[in-house]
Amino acid sequence: MAEEKQIPYKIYLEEQEMPEAWYNVRADMKNKPAPLLNPETLEPMTAEELGVVFCDELVKQELDNENPYIKIPEEIRSFYKMYRPSPLVRAYCLEEKLQTPAKIYYKFEGNNTSGSHKLNSAIAQAYYAKNQGLKGVTTETGAGQWGTALSMACAYLNLDCRVFMVKCSYEQKPFRREVMRTYGAQVTPSPSETTEVGRKILKEHPGTSGSLGCAISEAVECATGMEGYRYVLGSVLNQVLLHQSIIGLETKAALDKYGVVPDIIIGCAGGGSNLGGLISPFMGEKLRGERDYQFIAVEPASCPTLTRGKFAYDFCDTGMVTPLAKMYTLGSGFIPSASHAGGLRYHGMNPVLSQLYADGLMEARSVEQTSVFEAAQMFARVEGILPAPESAHAIRAALDEAMKCKETGEEKTIVFGLTGTGYFDMFAYGRYNDGEMSDYIPTDAELQAGFDGIPKI
Amino acid sequence: MAEEKQIPYKIYLEEQEMPEAWYNVRADMKNKPAPLLNPETLEPMTAEELGVVFCDELVKQELDNENPYIKIPEEIRSFYKMYRPSPLVRAYCLEEKLQTPAKIYYKFEGNNTSGSHKLNSAIAQAYYAKNQGLKGVTTETGAGQWGTALSMACAYLNLDCRVFMVKCSYEQKPFRREVMRTYGAQVTPSPSETTEVGRKILKEHPGTSGSLGCAISEAVECATGMEGYRYVLGSVLNQVLLHQSIIGLETKAALDKYGVVPDIIIGCAGGGSNLGGLISPFMGEKLRGERDYQFIAVEPASCPTLTRGKFAYDFCDTGMVTPLAKMYTLGSGFIPSASHAGGLRYHGMNPVLSQLYADGLMEARSVEQTSVFEAAQMFARVEGILPAPESAHAIRAALDEAMKCKETGEEKTIVFGLTGTGYFDMFAYGRYNDGEMSDYIPTDAELQAGFDGIPKI
Repeated sequence: MAEEKQIPYKIYLEEQEMPEAWYNVRADMKNKPAPLLNPETLEPMTAEELGVVFCDELVKQELDNENPYIKIPEEIRSFYKMYRPSPLVRAYCLEEKLQTPAKIYYKFEGNNTSGSHKLNSAIAQAYYAKNQGLKGVTTETGAGQWGTALSMACAYLNLDCRVFMVKCSYEQKPFRREVMRTYGAQVTPSPSETTEVGRKILKEHPGTSGSLGCAISEAVECATGMEGYRYVLGSVLNQVLLHQSIIGLETKAALDKYGVVPDIIIGCAGGGSNLGGLISPFMGEKLRGERDYQFIAVEPASCPTLTRGKFAYDFCDTGMVTPLAKMYTLGSGFIPSASHAGGLRYHGMNPVLSQLYADGLMEARSVEQTSVFEAAQMFARVEGILPAPESAHAIRAALDEAMKCKETGEEKTIVFGLTGTGYFDMFAYGRYNDGEMSDYIPTDAELQAGFDGIPKI
Repeated sequence: MAEEKQIPYKIYLEEQEMPEAWYNVRADMKNKPAPLLNPETLEPMTAEELGVVFCDELVKQELDNENPYIKIPEEIRSFYKMYRPSPLVRAYCLEEKLQTPAKIYYKFEGNNTSGSHKLNSAIAQAYYAKNQGLKGVTTETGAGQWGTALSMACAYLNLDCRVFMVKCSYEQKPFRREVMRTYGAQVTPSPSETTEVGRKILKEHPGTSGSLGCAISEAVECATGMEGYRYVLGSVLNQVLLHQSIIGLETKAALDKYGVVPDIIIGCAGGGSNLGGLISPFMGEKLRGERDYQFIAVEPASCPTLTRGKFAYDFCDTGMVTPLAKMYTLGSGFIPSASHAGGLRYHGMNPVLSQLYADGLMEARSVEQTSVFEAAQMFARVEGILPAPESAHAIRAALDEAMKCKETGEEKTIVFGLTGTGYFDMFAYGRYNDGEMSDYIPTDAELQAGFDGIPKI
């Protein structure tokens, strides 16, 4: 308890304490994640097949289930130093407000212009593309955090960046678009006339406001159709989890410095990039039988991939052009409705996290939107930081766990991931402030329609 | 040079290294800033007179020209710890890009939800109001950073906060408004029907989009008309400079840790809050004859207060309801046109800085808007951070100085203040990205019209 008092509001690691290697949790998994399958042959995708779309080094990382540590290239560490190590914050003000005996920490990834943790993988993917001698990369973006992060990374490396932004986001979030343009990215509203698939969709659905699935298809076509370009993705893939493990490694290093051992680790879950990155090194300890932790994935009730989905092989995109991944899924045709947590509106879940959840190594819960914004507002007022709606899902669960501790008197240590800031989400905050926000939980029939689209393998 | 290599990308002080007292540069000034005058009697304003509008403790600080150090109350330090100490960044990437022998550092104040340094004074002013047993405070906001900062501080202290937001900003920056509302502030577009002065202006100018001067008048009327309320202000006043001295004190402590002595210190200048805070402790050394530094104030060419203004007694607001301050001024009737750096569009300048400039202890230069955004975009791409347009004025001057070093081969150490982020200024960035931004320099005749309104004393 004497040492307890020494814990500062923010634990910053020194730059030389920043991890030198990413941690690949797959190496410690007994049940490995199932391989990606070629949808035509139903055989595992080979490195050659994946290399048409993705950079060579990233394909290697995607397929690597054995090496526990993969060295972070020096150039990437240099870039990381512009905004990392990120602070691990002791939420003293929140604890005081809640009058809970729980000790609450959060790892804050929002202190960079992209506004989220996405930059950790963006710079890695851009670096490997540059290193392969490529001219540029293409991607899609919905909420816009990934597109912004990739634009920043490409500006730094002088790499061309082409972002297909879902048309409704392009129009509703013009400021996100301008951030990407300021970083030199070419931003195209999707569907567009610039690709075959875009023109086809526009012909079939004139006036459509687009979808993530369509934007993925356009970005892939754009990359494969141009010499010296590859496609990159900000979540779902195992390589992304690998890069994001820096979040968990730093969190663990900071806690270790003060001899703190968490009981519960909480992350919001869309495609899994933040959650997987945060829990990886702790999950490694659990898998190796060294220590036990409670892991909680928090997802929106409007898009309940883990809590109500199926564990099956499915397409990663709505357009059904990607390989098949074995994962928890609501069906690639499931359209999540009216949720403002744009970054969590994904029908599937990273295969590693899916396997861990299937094996009972991790819990999941879903929370409703208004209760998420209630938590976000309270957190902003007490801790100062205005959270992204996605991040606020984790805050909601952390508050709930802290209040349980208040009832039971348990002094649990809770760590959650605060993935980013909500500066570009003020439209949603405005709806909440005006009392105009509602909740939505899909019916069993609606989910069944999504499940019916899952390929029968 | 061996030690030089050890300097990290970001110098973070430990929490216990955070200053325990603000530094009051007035104590070391031979020529003190001239006192505020009562516009009716032309006698110096007394503490009693000021106490009608401002909190008692803040009046004491406003009038204190003698005490060099004023202890920061423990409650304020606790709040500071949520986002301070702020990093002093070594701009390695920028130096590399410019291929300059100059060593560039910037003190980054944007890592908090208010997005700027304004929070340093907002929490202090809110704390003293709370401590005096007040119910709430009123203020005005233009660009919105001050209003946001005050809302955050009041939410933390559970103090009522009423912000009069210039109507055109209220409508053009709805997201700024929503941030303030999320922190529980009552935000009223000004002019409004809620005050006498507001109703009068609306009657005389139906459909007006408001002005800062009008918003100040409404905020003052609102505060003085309600039991338990006072008016607070985010710049211009000497008390604000005092609170903002934490920027300079931390900067100096961080540099001292590595034995670095700056040659040039640069800050953007609107009302003077950031510039004064950043340079204060260094200016103290210069005033005491201990060390010499080159100080550069950077202002927009569209609102050239120091570079083309008069040093005279003038009103602090357009409505001419405030005391008279002796300062550089363009005349309280001067309307700065079409500049997007909203925070720098002020006709006057803090009296301390005005006196220092008049005494030749500080330089000033003005820069044009498009060259400021050019610097901002370049900085964003190289250093990652998307700067506020206000902050980018300092970047512009720092780049110019660094390029001079490249020509002469001098290895000067340049420090500038990066006051905040530009997330809520993407409309302006968009205009720049679209090539639609233009420059504006007022003619001598336009300036003369402003000077003609300065009271003859």
